[in-house]
Amino acid sequence: MEPRVTVDELNAFLAREYPELNGPPVAGLPPVYAVHEVGPDFATVRLEAGPNHIRPGGTVSGPTLMTVVDIACWLAILAQIGTVALTVTTHLSIDFVRKPAPGPLHARAKVIKLGSRLAVTTCEITAPEGGPVFAHASATYSIPPASQRV
Amino acid sequence: MEPRVTVDELNAFLAREYPELNGPPVAGLPPVYAVHEVGPDFATVRLEAGPNHIRPGGTVSGPTLMTVVDIACWLAILAQIGTVALTVTTHLSIDFVRKPAPGPLHARAKVIKLGSRLAVTTCEITAPEGGPVFAHASATYSIPPASQRV
Amino acid sequence: MEPRVTVDELNAFLAREYPELNGPPVAGLPPVYAVHEVGPDFATVRLEAGPNHIRPGGTVSGPTLMTVVDIACWLAILAQIGTVALTVTTHLSIDFVRKPAPGPLHARAKVIKLGSRLAVTTCEITAPEGGPVFAHASATYSIPPASQRV
Amino acid sequence: MEPRVTVDELNAFLAREYPELNGPPVAGLPPVYAVHEVGPDFATVRLEAGPNHIRPGGTVSGPTLMTVVDIACWLAILAQIGTVALTVTTHLSIDFVRKPAPGPLHARAKVIKLGSRLAVTTCEITAPEGGPVFAHASATYSIPPASQRV
Repeated sequence: MEPRVTVDELNAFLAREYPELNGPPVAGLPPVYAVHEVGPDFATVRLEAGPNHIRPGGTVSGPTLMTVVDIACWLAILAQIGTVALTVTTHLSIDFVRKPAPGPLHARAKVIKLGSRLAVTTCEITAPEGGPVFAHASATYSIPPASQRV
Repeated sequence: MEPRVTVDELNAFLAREYPELNGPPVAGLPPVYAVHEVGPDFATVRLEAGPNHIRPGGTVSGPTLMTVVDIACWLAILAQIGTVALTVTTHLSIDFVRKPAPGPLHARAKVIKLGSRLAVTTCEITAPEGGPVFAHASATYSIPPASQRV
Repeated sequence: MEPRVTVDELNAFLAREYPELNGPPVAGLPPVYAVHEVGPDFATVRLEAGPNHIRPGGTVSGPTLMTVVDIACWLAILAQIGTVALTVTTHLSIDFVRKPAPGPLHARAKVIKLGSRLAVTTCEITAPEGGPVFAHASATYSIPPASQRV
Repeated sequence: MEPRVTVDELNAFLAREYPELNGPPVAGLPPVYAVHEVGPDFATVRLEAGPNHIRPGGTVSGPTLMTVVDIACWLAILAQIGTVALTVTTHLSIDFVRKPAPGPLHARAKVIKLGSRLAVTTCEITAPEGGPVFAHASATYSIPPASQRV
């Protein structure tokens, strides 16, 4: 099926519902987390890792990579069901297999099961052009009953 | 065995090696992430979740909880082996089981296996005084060979 | 709260609903998997690992350890909600941290969240008398709505 | 790179090193676990789930699915490095997203990182002809140093 929500709508939703994620826009700089692509069962979020996102050793920090995974998986689901903000993560598992240097990364999340109450996703982080996987993750989300959606 | 590193030493290490984590100190405000206690095989990190750490619905965000887990597990290992900053996360798995409101939380990490090259930890997030678990996690770290430590 | 089901009732349930797990009883031999203890939020299953449960190198195989974890976590939940056999595993994550030699092992599972539709558990495998952890796991189960229980 | 080991060699290795996995051959019946395909960075294991592998509700049991994942991921690594039997699982995480009925299933494991001491894999279980995913997993293995291989 087609996604119900476009890239622009997802970015606007993210800025409105989760303003602290990117902080206030800075002229001439891209946001740290931006939806890049969305499709029938996936969403890709672009991470612009800057000096704030580096760990000892000079590579992108684990918490930054976990954040982009969580955002991408969440939005991959919301792209299918609509922007139900109260959809929450119940589990996230990630393997860090290579250390990414600062610079843009893509987290591509795929919905492998969309139930009425639970959705399961997988996610890979690579360079924007693809190539070796930096991290592989899976994440599960609880979807509120339709009656509790706002 | 006794930890090789004290609470104060771990906090100083964190500020020096990972300055972006807490950002510059703000007069009258506690740091977001602070080592609270350290012991023979554990470390507890206190999280002061503020407005920056909230997700839609008003609870502490998943990325914030994953960050405090990663810091606590990393420091629980470094407390035993010394502050080997290049010790890196290779895997992290977390179950979010209750939604914490803003305010202080404690992440207590325990080292369940300390090998020469790999260490495995578990972590629970609760209120500072204990009580129901908000999140339970496990995390694995790769320890660089002694010859590569700086 | 007190468990709703006793050790003997759980063992009888296991033999009736899951006969292939232990196979037919053998005179003079204990079952491979047997409920050992049950309490307000936990269950302990004893594994008698025999020649069938050994992997190359002579230690107890990963699949055997994953099986005892799954059984212990499932029964820890059923001890609280009653023997709802259609409660199914939705996620299991395990860290193997030490290699157990053949012989008895205890898997002690604890329920950390019991919701109406989902339950989350943790589990540790040790020698019967305790001591170092051989494996640590977490597992999540989907509980069928009351109307679908048989 | 080409796998170093063929399908037939992996099946012979499995029968020799892990005889309890399939038990003694039964005339006219396929083995429960059989290597089906092997490639530069993957291996597919076919599971013939029979009456012994069923859980309450009539679907293939979680332990059976975890076993085929562990075998497939292990062999995907051994196909690249040679049949180093002492390569052992250190972590396995699995999401069960649909319930498979009895019958043949394929577990396709992919090596996403092959280090000298650790290898990380992912695995999907589907029907032999593909289609919806029944389970998705990741698993990590510790590879013994060359000097300890036999």
